[in-house]
Amino acid sequence: MQRLNSGDAGFGERLQALLAFETAQDPTVDERVAAICADVKARGDAALIEYTNRFDRMQAASMAELTLGRDALEAAFLRLPEAQRAALSAAAGRVRRYHEKQLAHSWQYEDEDGTLLGQQVTALDRVGIYVPGGKAAYPSSVLMNALPAKVAGVGEIVMVVPTPGGERNDLVFAAAYIAGVDQVYTVGGAQAVAALAYGTETIAQVDKITGPGNAYVAAAKRRVFGVVGIDMVAGPSEILVICDGTTDPDWIAMDLFSQAEHDEIAQAILLCPDAAYLDAVAASIERLLPSMPRRDIIAASLANRGALVQVTDLDEACRIANYIAPEHLELSVADPEAWLPALKHAGAIFMGRFTSESLGDYCAGPNHVLPTSRTARFASPLGVYDFQKRTSLIRVSREGADRLGRIASVLAHGEGLTAHARAAELRLTQAD
Amino acid sequence: MQRLNSGDAGFGERLQALLAFETAQDPTVDERVAAICADVKARGDAALIEYTNRFDRMQAASMAELTLGRDALEAAFLRLPEAQRAALSAAAGRVRRYHEKQLAHSWQYEDEDGTLLGQQVTALDRVGIYVPGGKAAYPSSVLMNALPAKVAGVGEIVMVVPTPGGERNDLVFAAAYIAGVDQVYTVGGAQAVAALAYGTETIAQVDKITGPGNAYVAAAKRRVFGVVGIDMVAGPSEILVICDGTTDPDWIAMDLFSQAEHDEIAQAILLCPDAAYLDAVAASIERLLPSMPRRDIIAASLANRGALVQVTDLDEACRIANYIAPEHLELSVADPEAWLPALKHAGAIFMGRFTSESLGDYCAGPNHVLPTSRTARFASPLGVYDFQKRTSLIRVSREGADRLGRIASVLAHGEGLTAHARAAELRLTQAD
Repeated sequence: MQRLNSGDAGFGERLQALLAFETAQDPTVDERVAAICADVKARGDAALIEYTNRFDRMQAASMAELTLGRDALEAAFLRLPEAQRAALSAAAGRVRRYHEKQLAHSWQYEDEDGTLLGQQVTALDRVGIYVPGGKAAYPSSVLMNALPAKVAGVGEIVMVVPTPGGERNDLVFAAAYIAGVDQVYTVGGAQAVAALAYGTETIAQVDKITGPGNAYVAAAKRRVFGVVGIDMVAGPSEILVICDGTTDPDWIAMDLFSQAEHDEIAQAILLCPDAAYLDAVAASIERLLPSMPRRDIIAASLANRGALVQVTDLDEACRIANYIAPEHLELSVADPEAWLPALKHAGAIFMGRFTSESLGDYCAGPNHVLPTSRTARFASPLGVYDFQKRTSLIRVSREGADRLGRIASVLAHGEGLTAHARAAELRLTQAD
Repeated sequence: MQRLNSGDAGFGERLQALLAFETAQDPTVDERVAAICADVKARGDAALIEYTNRFDRMQAASMAELTLGRDALEAAFLRLPEAQRAALSAAAGRVRRYHEKQLAHSWQYEDEDGTLLGQQVTALDRVGIYVPGGKAAYPSSVLMNALPAKVAGVGEIVMVVPTPGGERNDLVFAAAYIAGVDQVYTVGGAQAVAALAYGTETIAQVDKITGPGNAYVAAAKRRVFGVVGIDMVAGPSEILVICDGTTDPDWIAMDLFSQAEHDEIAQAILLCPDAAYLDAVAASIERLLPSMPRRDIIAASLANRGALVQVTDLDEACRIANYIAPEHLELSVADPEAWLPALKHAGAIFMGRFTSESLGDYCAGPNHVLPTSRTARFASPLGVYDFQKRTSLIRVSREGADRLGRIASVLAHGEGLTAHARAAELRLTQAD
């Protein structure tokens, strides 16, 4: 694991190199995805079933075999051990309550000459959630994608999840049940994205697709963007911890692990003004690592992209954090509120020693789908606002048409758009 | 201009064919754009100046010659005729006031066991506005892109606008002055987008780029997306008019013209239950067209993509409008409010006979950058929300860490993520 010091010459360059990450867009992947999407668009269910049987080692004869309704989802929920049922329900309740605060509402007002202006907020009609299959099938992702859509008032939520070799994950179906998903199709890959985007005989076209996936899924989402809405294509997961040097070093080591265990290219960085504390965390890492089931992934991630960084003080740590704009920012300090005004760019901020990032992944309430790779400079967590949209409302009175028409006429003529000007002028009512 | 009837066999297919529009992504354009972007990223100002001199027939020796500060913008404003100054100022004031209603604010709350949850809303640091040059240089676009950023509290707003052959448009610079743009660079094309996205010696990297452009600009924006945020890539402009058959047919004809005059592939459609009224509008079109300076563009647009559609009644018109999800929807009927609940998908709704769409283009207040090509099903007008972003806040108490930690632990073990579980378990404080 790298050890950096913000006072060293070349620190800026080393930090930049540490953060550098380019999503490789493999042209072979793109070509195969283009062919699959075109085929599903043209042949619908037949193509979807063929690709599913081929890529997921299935023997489905019809879409009915690949479809689960609410009853089947409920059955999966009821099959779970009581502790898991309770934990899922508690997490869903907290996530739902937080997201309810995000609901936007329509508004309108009239100005002085009776012109009505407003913004009508409506939910999307149909949303498709993509959930990866196999070992990376995360029920928490189901909650985090489906609940904001549900809270927004989306009319119908469908979910796709591949079941390679026919292996079904009850936790994922149970999460879909709790989150209010209407229908699940056990299909995945580019073919599932294409089916949602274009529609097939059995799957109705959706308006937006959200959720993580592999390179094929990401390429397919990029391809269908515009036909439907998509969420952001996520990069590797990241955590930045700012610590004042008095949190139990084991806690911080485990927080770094919990990010690193996702992926060899995940990123875990600690900023602290106290060199001795960085040593202590390094010792904790060494001692705790062998006990972790995913120690190989963790070790690779920390070696590749991790760093322990000594900073001058916490002010400097905040400036570095703003530059990094991390997905997850842990503020493991005595008075986290005091540093909040200095922090501008982050997906989520975990304040205080007791707030481990992993609570946010599951049940604190806020969404765990967060902007990665410095995109928190301009992007937000997934939220209810991603499943609502706005329509502007304008109604001018006879008087308003006269007053506004004169302004529009001058500007339209200035742009050389005579029909624009004439449309306004026809509605003038006052003699000049 | 096509004449359709919703009662005819095959109407659905004909409507779909009328709406069909695919943005061709020319691979040659993509390759050239990739090379330009890589070159500007590597060589900065030098490359930017070279491309500008070559593509825009300029002889600039340094970036200083391509830079306008606030003083130069103010001078352009003061050079305008009084009527234009007044119209620009009035439009800017109305647009600013409408957008101020869109400002989102931070919030937080504490739940029963002292867990603080919240959402911190902050503005983007730096935004770049792209403005096309030459004949399509629209001062209204400057207002509509820059003012929402200004209202959001963006720290710095820079603008790029090409000046082919050195020809500068005072109206565009004046609009930049009024909207609060900090700096203008007279560069354009893919090279300008790359300069904003990656930064050069004189142009600091921005966080988001908005504004329309040609195929090269659109390809460059798609390419740099992820490094910076971008707005949507717009398709051709569209209007859908629903009329009850009692508005002056000349008004409706001119409203259709005002959309059609943008572009040969712009779309103007009228829905009305009254066949005689459709005849009257057709007659108005024929009579008024010869007087329009842009009659060739209007005629091509109406012939290619326009339609007069007879519907059964206004209920059916609303259902068709929801399917089309038009950029601009004119509700030219006696009681427009009555139909609002039936309308779900549109960029902006212009209510009542006096509300010509062109008022919305310039000065009603709402934004004229709107979702096109049926994307109003999931997308919104450009707004202040495009220049703000959210950060989730979580602070759990010692008690909260215990209660939430137990939930997180069960779910993390269910996902096979042991470090996630251990990070939560280390913070448990209650004996079991």
